[in-house]
Amino acid sequence: MTNLSHQGLFTPAGSLAAVDTPCLLLDPQKMDANIARLRQSLEATGTGFRPHLKTAKSVDVARRMFAHGHGPATVSTLAEAEAFAQAGFTDLTYAVGITPCKLPRVAALHRQGTTVSVILDSVEQAEAVADFARRHLPIPALVELDCDGHRSGVCPDDHELLLDIASRLAPAPLLGVLTHAGESYHARGKAALAAAAENERACATRAAHILRAAGHACPVVSAGSTPTAFSAQSRHGLTEVRAGVFVFFDLVQAGIGVCRHEDIALSVLATVIGHQPSKGWIIIDAGWTALSADRGTDSQEKSQGLGMVCDLNGVPLPGLTVLDANQEHGIVACRNPACMPHLPVGARLRILPVHACATATQHDRYHVLGPDGNEITTTWPRFRGW
Amino acid sequence: MTNLSHQGLFTPAGSLAAVDTPCLLLDPQKMDANIARLRQSLEATGTGFRPHLKTAKSVDVARRMFAHGHGPATVSTLAEAEAFAQAGFTDLTYAVGITPCKLPRVAALHRQGTTVSVILDSVEQAEAVADFARRHLPIPALVELDCDGHRSGVCPDDHELLLDIASRLAPAPLLGVLTHAGESYHARGKAALAAAAENERACATRAAHILRAAGHACPVVSAGSTPTAFSAQSRHGLTEVRAGVFVFFDLVQAGIGVCRHEDIALSVLATVIGHQPSKGWIIIDAGWTALSADRGTDSQEKSQGLGMVCDLNGVPLPGLTVLDANQEHGIVACRNPACMPHLPVGARLRILPVHACATATQHDRYHVLGPDGNEITTTWPRFRGW
Repeated sequence: MTNLSHQGLFTPAGSLAAVDTPCLLLDPQKMDANIARLRQSLEATGTGFRPHLKTAKSVDVARRMFAHGHGPATVSTLAEAEAFAQAGFTDLTYAVGITPCKLPRVAALHRQGTTVSVILDSVEQAEAVADFARRHLPIPALVELDCDGHRSGVCPDDHELLLDIASRLAPAPLLGVLTHAGESYHARGKAALAAAAENERACATRAAHILRAAGHACPVVSAGSTPTAFSAQSRHGLTEVRAGVFVFFDLVQAGIGVCRHEDIALSVLATVIGHQPSKGWIIIDAGWTALSADRGTDSQEKSQGLGMVCDLNGVPLPGLTVLDANQEHGIVACRNPACMPHLPVGARLRILPVHACATATQHDRYHVLGPDGNEITTTWPRFRGW
Repeated sequence: MTNLSHQGLFTPAGSLAAVDTPCLLLDPQKMDANIARLRQSLEATGTGFRPHLKTAKSVDVARRMFAHGHGPATVSTLAEAEAFAQAGFTDLTYAVGITPCKLPRVAALHRQGTTVSVILDSVEQAEAVADFARRHLPIPALVELDCDGHRSGVCPDDHELLLDIASRLAPAPLLGVLTHAGESYHARGKAALAAAAENERACATRAAHILRAAGHACPVVSAGSTPTAFSAQSRHGLTEVRAGVFVFFDLVQAGIGVCRHEDIALSVLATVIGHQPSKGWIIIDAGWTALSADRGTDSQEKSQGLGMVCDLNGVPLPGLTVLDANQEHGIVACRNPACMPHLPVGARLRILPVHACATATQHDRYHVLGPDGNEITTTWPRFRGW
């Protein structure tokens, strides 16, 4: 065991000592660099940027994504749509299959001046949106495509269903097609990631071609996941890219290979509350309520458990991960127990998130770090719910 | 495929149709029966009832636990302690190892009239609490015991450490000992559960005996987990039982065998948003933000995935579980695909939680059902954070 406490890497001063733990830290410098990286890549190919705001759920973060104005953007709940509409965003895509019971809330946003496009993958949904258009208000819709068997969407080669949905939608406007390469999270290596991105692109553009050949304008061809957004060799035919988790990145994305650990902008600040020396454990006050129970790296080459353990500068401690967690307890262990540092009760650590969307949703605010990375300068509220 | 939609089991009327989904439903009749079951058992053995309020995080639920007055109770965060103190609870145990930085908030509650006892398992914590007592205020403490290697606590047979902690604590009062049989969640069968309960009891009473023999009064001997609370053959020597999840129960507890599915008082109301017929999937609008990512039944004999699927009356649909989830999507599959009912877009389902603490923490309120079980009569707020 190495005694590191004297190095001051675990005994904070100032605001990092004063804040109650566990809490969520955000490094805006890293976040800005992540945003700039994707924006520059999209500008180079002339492709639109419609980030998914489900990761951040924060007006302050969303505003940092756009040099001017508000959006366009993607949301995963109507609560997000309403919050961003209130903050001045006027062009949103609600990227979860629509149900008739949710159309009145979408319509209310339209009446207040925010266009919220919906997505659908069945004739029954198209007929419901068409019926709503005849009775109330035409809401623009995109046909969701299933490019890789991940979850929802029309098979892009099922031309009959694609055209049936498009024709039943009138008088609601058909805005275009949308897909999400969810299976790209399981791609390994640059070639596999590039292939996933190309498959996503080809699927979306092929479906758009079918619709256009049948006389539908199909102005929007939307694709995107963080792994494919950073791996595409071509974006030809795509009009916009949606990605969400890139804004913060996380250990799953680092494991996939689309970011480095030092790009991860989020961490959970935790305090040591005990030890089990016979097991080589350090107990911290960040359980699954603070970290989430997402174990997304368990299926990767190297599991990071429930998070990677860093010092107060955000530098990973070799081999230290959160092995397991209960509601308010995290169990930190070291891959090589002989290298476990001695961290006294009261020492503070930063835990990098396995899945930034899941970790962030456990918190009501971001504690925003200053330029030196070890002082909290402000807090930004997050919202949640539906 | 069976068409069940005409049966009205999935097309709600009234408040279950009007409410936005996903949302959290609470059946107070089931909850009251669960509370009564534990209370009656404890009254029969003359053992105190100090329920863990971390599951409910609701003043309304907490009040239903006590026929008269408020508490005593157990909490897992200082935010819970502050909320329940404000609601009139005056005797709380903060059952997560104390750190010096948290003592000022504990002291503030004492000054406002609420006793918050803390727990500790090391000499360094005892010295910090003693030092705080000399400088500010004596806060009562319990020594945490590790009865089964689950997580934190002093080995009850480490008499030297136990007595060392007790003697260093003065002038802060030593209230007693506390343990939690976390490993009882992995016990299978009545005999194993009874053995886990007896081990927990024996461990706590043995440590109390050691302390008393050395001249410490040790008035409190506290034990409890939901599995052991319902499996104890004897409570001799215990002064109180802590349990939390029993108030709602869940699929993990049903898998352990301490409740039936029909005792589970919580469920998530979700809406069907799509289908993948080729895979036999129904897509619902409850993802891990609504259900949590807890897969606690995966290690049991029968996995329930991320939840068991029920009709609007809360009756399980044979073989239907939530196979997987993304942020706002749940994938429902059937163990026998030929028995998958046809549920149209817009149909509503109730999902029983794998782990009630984890599911509840994803929501800001309970939608409370009326006596007939299919009408929402009120909402009860929940709180979270630290």
